[in-house]
Amino acid sequence: MSEPVFEPMDPEQLAIGLDQLPPPSSVLVIFGGVGDLARRKLLPALYNLAHEGNLPERFRLIGVSHTDLGEDAFREQLAEAVRRFSRRTPDPEVLGALVAGAHYVHGGFEDGTTYTALCARIEQLEEEVGQPLARVHYLSTAPRFFGPIVEQLGEHGLARTEHAPTRVVIEKPFGTTQDEAHELNRRIREVLDEEQIFRIDHYLGKETVQNLLALRFANGLFEPLWNRTHVASVQITSAEAVGLEGRAGYYDGSGALRDLVQNHLLQVLAILAMEPPTAFAADDIRTEKVKVLRAVEPIPRDRMAEHAVRGRYGAGSIGGEVVPAYRDEPGVPETSRTETFAALRLHVDTWRWAGVPFYIRTGKRLSRKLTEVAVTLQPVPHLAFEGAGAVQPNQIIFTLQPDEHVAIKLAAKVPGSGMHLRPVTMDFSYGTAFLSTSPEAYERLITDALRGEALLFTRADEVEAQWSVIQPILDAWGTDHATPDEYASGSDGPRSQARILRPGDAWRAI
Amino acid sequence: MSEPVFEPMDPEQLAIGLDQLPPPSSVLVIFGGVGDLARRKLLPALYNLAHEGNLPERFRLIGVSHTDLGEDAFREQLAEAVRRFSRRTPDPEVLGALVAGAHYVHGGFEDGTTYTALCARIEQLEEEVGQPLARVHYLSTAPRFFGPIVEQLGEHGLARTEHAPTRVVIEKPFGTTQDEAHELNRRIREVLDEEQIFRIDHYLGKETVQNLLALRFANGLFEPLWNRTHVASVQITSAEAVGLEGRAGYYDGSGALRDLVQNHLLQVLAILAMEPPTAFAADDIRTEKVKVLRAVEPIPRDRMAEHAVRGRYGAGSIGGEVVPAYRDEPGVPETSRTETFAALRLHVDTWRWAGVPFYIRTGKRLSRKLTEVAVTLQPVPHLAFEGAGAVQPNQIIFTLQPDEHVAIKLAAKVPGSGMHLRPVTMDFSYGTAFLSTSPEAYERLITDALRGEALLFTRADEVEAQWSVIQPILDAWGTDHATPDEYASGSDGPRSQARILRPGDAWRAI
Repeated sequence: MSEPVFEPMDPEQLAIGLDQLPPPSSVLVIFGGVGDLARRKLLPALYNLAHEGNLPERFRLIGVSHTDLGEDAFREQLAEAVRRFSRRTPDPEVLGALVAGAHYVHGGFEDGTTYTALCARIEQLEEEVGQPLARVHYLSTAPRFFGPIVEQLGEHGLARTEHAPTRVVIEKPFGTTQDEAHELNRRIREVLDEEQIFRIDHYLGKETVQNLLALRFANGLFEPLWNRTHVASVQITSAEAVGLEGRAGYYDGSGALRDLVQNHLLQVLAILAMEPPTAFAADDIRTEKVKVLRAVEPIPRDRMAEHAVRGRYGAGSIGGEVVPAYRDEPGVPETSRTETFAALRLHVDTWRWAGVPFYIRTGKRLSRKLTEVAVTLQPVPHLAFEGAGAVQPNQIIFTLQPDEHVAIKLAAKVPGSGMHLRPVTMDFSYGTAFLSTSPEAYERLITDALRGEALLFTRADEVEAQWSVIQPILDAWGTDHATPDEYASGSDGPRSQARILRPGDAWRAI
Repeated sequence: MSEPVFEPMDPEQLAIGLDQLPPPSSVLVIFGGVGDLARRKLLPALYNLAHEGNLPERFRLIGVSHTDLGEDAFREQLAEAVRRFSRRTPDPEVLGALVAGAHYVHGGFEDGTTYTALCARIEQLEEEVGQPLARVHYLSTAPRFFGPIVEQLGEHGLARTEHAPTRVVIEKPFGTTQDEAHELNRRIREVLDEEQIFRIDHYLGKETVQNLLALRFANGLFEPLWNRTHVASVQITSAEAVGLEGRAGYYDGSGALRDLVQNHLLQVLAILAMEPPTAFAADDIRTEKVKVLRAVEPIPRDRMAEHAVRGRYGAGSIGGEVVPAYRDEPGVPETSRTETFAALRLHVDTWRWAGVPFYIRTGKRLSRKLTEVAVTLQPVPHLAFEGAGAVQPNQIIFTLQPDEHVAIKLAAKVPGSGMHLRPVTMDFSYGTAFLSTSPEAYERLITDALRGEALLFTRADEVEAQWSVIQPILDAWGTDHATPDEYASGSDGPRSQARILRPGDAWRAI
């Protein structure tokens, strides 16, 4: 950790560039510091940032939780989480330094004394390091605590910015309905300015999602094609092979639409469909994304069946393993009608995209893990080659995971006499081109939060625009008392997904 | 050779499709049947066509030459040429059948008795096979015999088409000046209809050149970009590592401009720049190519230096081998001013291409063998990523030989925090995608000639339009008494080639 220390902290300086400067001296407060997300993602991410010298030279961590732990026990849990979940085998020295700067405050999230203790601890740490510390409160708790924690922070002077920058990072889900999201925004905005609020959508921390921005706006190749004249349809797929992974309690109250579409996949859609931003800055980009999200045509209740399909996995087998039906999973109530698969046809009513279907599909227990975006170009308007065989329209495919690729499907001439065409694929593999391992999404998001860089976090109006797309579908599904269409585990989802396709379109194989 | 025999021959049928039907029963007459081209290319190509069942079931070959050989000696030379130069080790049975159908007529190309003998031999063969044979006269001789042979064929009734289809294939060079080409066209058109004339440009027989057509017109990806709005420049390079290969006599009278630019590289330019044809048929495509060639702006004499560079190789080393300067090559006269390197900047004055430079470059004794087309797109009009580093404009690169590739150079995000961009390459290798070996250019061209398919042969107006581009440069170079700029063998050509570049453009490394 050899970066220079920046003091006094100059908010102007923080705004320059994205990564030229190391984050300022900070204290990161993780509410829910021994929870599942913290142990699996946040604490390992902190270790890897420390390992790469990407934490501030003066950095302190405070875990806050209602779990009754001493500071030593918390430090042991931190070390254990890093050893177990870090993408790197930890270096004892680096880990030791991280652990030595870790502290613990025990208390309930709605209990004022917790915040009094937190306040005292932060002031003590500032005294130790001899300077003010930027404060980043990371809300890695059950969503019902988001509002109360922010209010408590406000009441105890922990949301003020005069002394040092103060931010609040809020995990997903941001509301489970449009009204809830709106109400949550209202509550936290009573305490915090929008610039202090960092709403997590961890998809935005993924290299692959950010690379969509780079590919679209740093290349002359794509932009001329990127409109209704040349694009026939767009398909966004996020398939999982896993089932509930023991999270029936959460998942059955959520479902595929809330869990993946409302947030992640609508963000991907927004990045794909947005106009070029004036600058690569948080508000420029978020404003363009909001414009897209607001332009998504609401699905009328009486045409829901033409635009939305829900499914639920039955028994089946994936990779040779026999797996049970959703309704037989432990913890799923008999009366459940929760969808584990959702497919939508959306339209973006803009000059650029009018008439181009945006297909979105996600599900659990599908044939394999795959997140991809496929942009299908219009067929060639006139094929001069008689008898050349059916020519598939070109596709540009961005595979986001598990194996990042950009591929273009073209037609080329089959060697030999005559003009026979065959699809061929040009591709570029991210893993082969860049030998370094990509940082995990949370590493990027934590440094950005420490720096005050909000580009990869969702703004209030974005979240609400996303809910405006999803809520009518949830409402329709909530009142029609239908059971989701069953699909075999290990398949590509229910047959009924074909129902929403425009004639001539096809779902890509997963 | 199991294809059905088509009789009686129906000219309509021959015109259908390119390769659906095997060629009709034919006799191929090779003038210069024991010459270098015949032995290295034509006879091995015939063998490979036979091997693949792509010769007519009833096929006869007649070699004509002033070399005094008996039929047996000719057959032995045929077998020897196949064994030595075929891309396949010959199968004795297939080769035996080919040899058994080979005949020889000894005589001078300007001597009427040669044609009387040829006529008699063809009639005798038709009697043997019991049907008329399509006649394809292949002029693989020194260019000065092209006119006389055609006239003799006319005089002896060997150019008539009433009895059976009759065609004449004419090798390159088609004239050594614009006037000569024009005069040659006039002479042969007195005997033959244009539809009977098949002017060889063996580049058109290359899979890779034909694939340019397929890529351009069977894909939605390229056409929207293929114009002055999106293309900044086009670069066509044909580099050779070899020197004279003992052909000083021919080459010193020709030079790089005549040898490669006038024919092959202008054909590549025409295919790249042409409008989409109405149909994939000989005259539709050739008409579009002529439109491009006629639109190439003639270079004014007083601006020659801004548009054309010539070079001549000095001594140097290539791949570790020390090679002599051109002027020291055996057979090169001391007074020679022949160019072994030529670079041009051409402009195609059409709505589509106005203002886009087309750079063409060819040379001998360059650093390696490489034929490629690089289409450089315009830089992105606005780069939102501050501090992302200089971003190279995208390039689409078609490598025609030695290793066929299509590649697209893009900018992608370097993994890690911030938005740093780096060029990456997507590519598609023809060899990897198609496991079959590509046929040699001459195999394709011979079957097309046997079928009467003229698409891959150049029409009279094309040849003359090509000469219109080249002749002013030859005239200027012929009268300025300057010596070509010297470049070291093994280099990328003379430094002076940079002179013709538009500011901001750069020659690609060979």
